[in-house]
Amino acid sequence: MFNRVALLGIGLIGSSLARVMRRDSLAGHIAVSSRTQASLDKAMELGLADSITLDPAKAVANADLVVLCAPIGACGELAKAMKPGLKPGAIVSDVGSVKAAIIHDVGQHLPNGVHLVPGHPVAGTEHSGPEAGFPELFKGRWCILTPPPQTNEAAIGLVTQMWQAAGMNVEIMDAAHHDHVLAITSHLPHLIAYSIVATATDLESHLQKEVIKFSASGFRDFTRIAASDPTMWRDIFLYNKEAVLDVLGRFTEDLTALQRAIRRDESNTLFDTFTRTRAIRRSVVEAKQA
Amino acid sequence: MFNRVALLGIGLIGSSLARVMRRDSLAGHIAVSSRTQASLDKAMELGLADSITLDPAKAVANADLVVLCAPIGACGELAKAMKPGLKPGAIVSDVGSVKAAIIHDVGQHLPNGVHLVPGHPVAGTEHSGPEAGFPELFKGRWCILTPPPQTNEAAIGLVTQMWQAAGMNVEIMDAAHHDHVLAITSHLPHLIAYSIVATATDLESHLQKEVIKFSASGFRDFTRIAASDPTMWRDIFLYNKEAVLDVLGRFTEDLTALQRAIRRDESNTLFDTFTRTRAIRRSVVEAKQA
Repeated sequence: MFNRVALLGIGLIGSSLARVMRRDSLAGHIAVSSRTQASLDKAMELGLADSITLDPAKAVANADLVVLCAPIGACGELAKAMKPGLKPGAIVSDVGSVKAAIIHDVGQHLPNGVHLVPGHPVAGTEHSGPEAGFPELFKGRWCILTPPPQTNEAAIGLVTQMWQAAGMNVEIMDAAHHDHVLAITSHLPHLIAYSIVATATDLESHLQKEVIKFSASGFRDFTRIAASDPTMWRDIFLYNKEAVLDVLGRFTEDLTALQRAIRRDESNTLFDTFTRTRAIRRSVVEAKQA
Repeated sequence: MFNRVALLGIGLIGSSLARVMRRDSLAGHIAVSSRTQASLDKAMELGLADSITLDPAKAVANADLVVLCAPIGACGELAKAMKPGLKPGAIVSDVGSVKAAIIHDVGQHLPNGVHLVPGHPVAGTEHSGPEAGFPELFKGRWCILTPPPQTNEAAIGLVTQMWQAAGMNVEIMDAAHHDHVLAITSHLPHLIAYSIVATATDLESHLQKEVIKFSASGFRDFTRIAASDPTMWRDIFLYNKEAVLDVLGRFTEDLTALQRAIRRDESNTLFDTFTRTRAIRRSVVEAKQA
């Protein structure tokens, strides 16, 4: 599919994509660049890279496809650093969970004739690093592409085919709309999970021990989400600030209404709310998302 | 273990306990009472009951052990209704997620010589009803007993053995302390999950469809919790009001601090918080709770 691919970043997503490319022989050569030599050595040891370099411009030289697999906050600088190496006609994509910021921060550094096809494979685990990847990570999940208007159709087609080879269902969407939808489905749930687990870390130590002991009663599910990569998530909240603060505002209003209902013994309000939420679960199950 | 057991309520927990009793022959006779004839017929059809009746007093007649398996808000009335049938020396237990309220509401109706051993098997699924039960539900999970001071030791021992037979690890705890710990580990997580899913139910319908479609990015995990039984959870929040409002207050403060950090681009605050929460996950995994 590609003569030469450059992966800038080789964490959970980057290394999983490299494994797919190896498995399906999608790339003649995989060049990997990363912030640390340790990650590069690990990528080589795992057989995920044909060449490694700390210099993004060297990694992207002659690449048909460049995929930024770094935290969102690092992508602007990465784009600037790789720019001198980009060949005309190259496709640049990424895997970030916020898309409008990527189009702005990365797009501004790309020369004419290089095609930006921003992507978000909606898949992940709470583990990080090159060892955490596996090729089945993407299977049956959604990948959302948010190419700006007038993006080269052939470039969009190739990125689509790559994620389909990884087993993903590909959807094209406007970047701002993506950021709003994901703020609800992903960013808010993560923020809330981080917050509730953070609340537990402030408890007296004997109480904290009991919370861990009896965590299977609900708390446990939040700890898994709240174990996600801190750098990645710090960037998501900062780079999708507006949408996150908007949905957080709605959530806080609704939670405050429930709090008020509990304090005032408004049992019907509670019962009606908990009945409505059950219907959503049925929709999720019917949509084969659970 | 018991000549005659009465189960008052035959939903997820009651029917799972009945299945354990059948599997291990723990009871010579299982009498089931329920609010509806339909549940009783289902219990008989599933082979979970030797006798069924709508009258709690008839169900508990001659029973060595009575287990209230009803929503917490129904337990006081149930205790009052069953009182005429209780035999001297009977053990009365329950499976509710709030314990101080049970001791008060149920305890006041019990004659002298009847032993109250409140219990909370910390296990469940998002499904309800007699068909939803299965005997392995309790395996490897915690059961917390909160007998008031001076409770008959033999009665505590028998209830302990019953839950151990179901595969549970039994822990004895003060009722108020139980209610505080569970408010953190279970009641707050459920309230938050209900709230975030309720927020989604208010979205415009096209947006709601997309939220369901991309729910695997975090939202999905909350929908499972928010599909739990509405009656049961309404009662938990109303009967553990004080502890729930207390931990909810702490949570809201912490969430507001994160909101402030996002708005002000305080990236170190976010990074530090998300790093601390990761450590809690490790503790949960080490405690073999995940």
